[in-house]
Amino acid sequence: MHKGSIIVVSGPSGAGKGTVISRLLTQCRDIFFSVSVTTRGMRPGEVEGVHYHFISEREYDEILSADAFLETAEVHGCHYGTPAVPVLNAVGNGHDALLDIDVQGASQVMARCPEAVTVFLMPPSLQELEKRLRGRNTETEEKVLKRLSNARREVLEASRYQYVIVNDQLDDAVEQLKAVILASRHRTQTNRDQLNQIISTFQA
Amino acid sequence: MHKGSIIVVSGPSGAGKGTVISRLLTQCRDIFFSVSVTTRGMRPGEVEGVHYHFISEREYDEILSADAFLETAEVHGCHYGTPAVPVLNAVGNGHDALLDIDVQGASQVMARCPEAVTVFLMPPSLQELEKRLRGRNTETEEKVLKRLSNARREVLEASRYQYVIVNDQLDDAVEQLKAVILASRHRTQTNRDQLNQIISTFQA
Repeated sequence: MHKGSIIVVSGPSGAGKGTVISRLLTQCRDIFFSVSVTTRGMRPGEVEGVHYHFISEREYDEILSADAFLETAEVHGCHYGTPAVPVLNAVGNGHDALLDIDVQGASQVMARCPEAVTVFLMPPSLQELEKRLRGRNTETEEKVLKRLSNARREVLEASRYQYVIVNDQLDDAVEQLKAVILASRHRTQTNRDQLNQIISTFQA
Repeated sequence: MHKGSIIVVSGPSGAGKGTVISRLLTQCRDIFFSVSVTTRGMRPGEVEGVHYHFISEREYDEILSADAFLETAEVHGCHYGTPAVPVLNAVGNGHDALLDIDVQGASQVMARCPEAVTVFLMPPSLQELEKRLRGRNTETEEKVLKRLSNARREVLEASRYQYVIVNDQLDDAVEQLKAVILASRHRTQTNRDQLNQIISTFQA
């Protein structure tokens, strides 16, 4: 039975990660999207199980002490994490599991799951990123500057990823991410069982 | 400027390599197909520059002594090889270069070009391979048995390749090979220049 792959996608805010991923998931229904947990409160517009699973500090601590997070982060005193169980279940059942996580989280997944496929979604330039962030018209100047400052730091991590996709044209970026995922399904390392089964017909 | 990748495709006779590759090349005109050289005589139906470049032993020795082969082989006292120059030129000009070579040749390319993308095209089973070989109706029983015996040996090398594509349905196999090649274009290691150029816009 074919094993799925863990697909990590990172990229600075404004690179278009959310749009690329939601297009991809619409086109590839067999991909499992990992929903992170968080201990912070739900914000207006957020939906439990879609944007996050909202859990208590106690629930978070239980998962943490069971060493059952693929990655965790702390932001403004609130905890975030990717529980391992749903991801590993999906992969074990032959589905690719897509994780939309930041560079720090990705770094933890790379260490823990060296067979993960890692993709950095890159804006074409700082200028284009700034244009997109300001084009949203929903953010304060302070937030835009904060996101740009984070982006400056995050893009320096791109070379640690196996793949870099420059999101210049949305359709191209979606196709390219699809190709990375389709290709990953034929990696020798994730198809050892099927491969050995075929080889055995040759050695009989 | 984006560098192309060396794409090595191997697989036993009857796996459908020729058909998969010719379909792929028709659909992806930007891929450079490496034509091997050989010192053996041209056979009926063969075309210079299509099936092989037919060269003299002296020309072969010149390339060999210049260390300008990516891989070589000797079969029944005749020499075969993949000259490095056309492949490296194509790759340097941003084209992917596809090499249809056997497991021994692939092994040499893996050692010499560790960044090469390697794909093994696998028949679904020995039984199916035998059916396809006999279905050709062009081969003597002796040749069929020889090909099956070679296949038994070759499939054992599949696990040394990065990707294994099972050629069960031709269209699927072509799509899967295309995905492997498209994905390879976004490997971080072959896009360092473009990546650094984008990152530089963030650090100004």
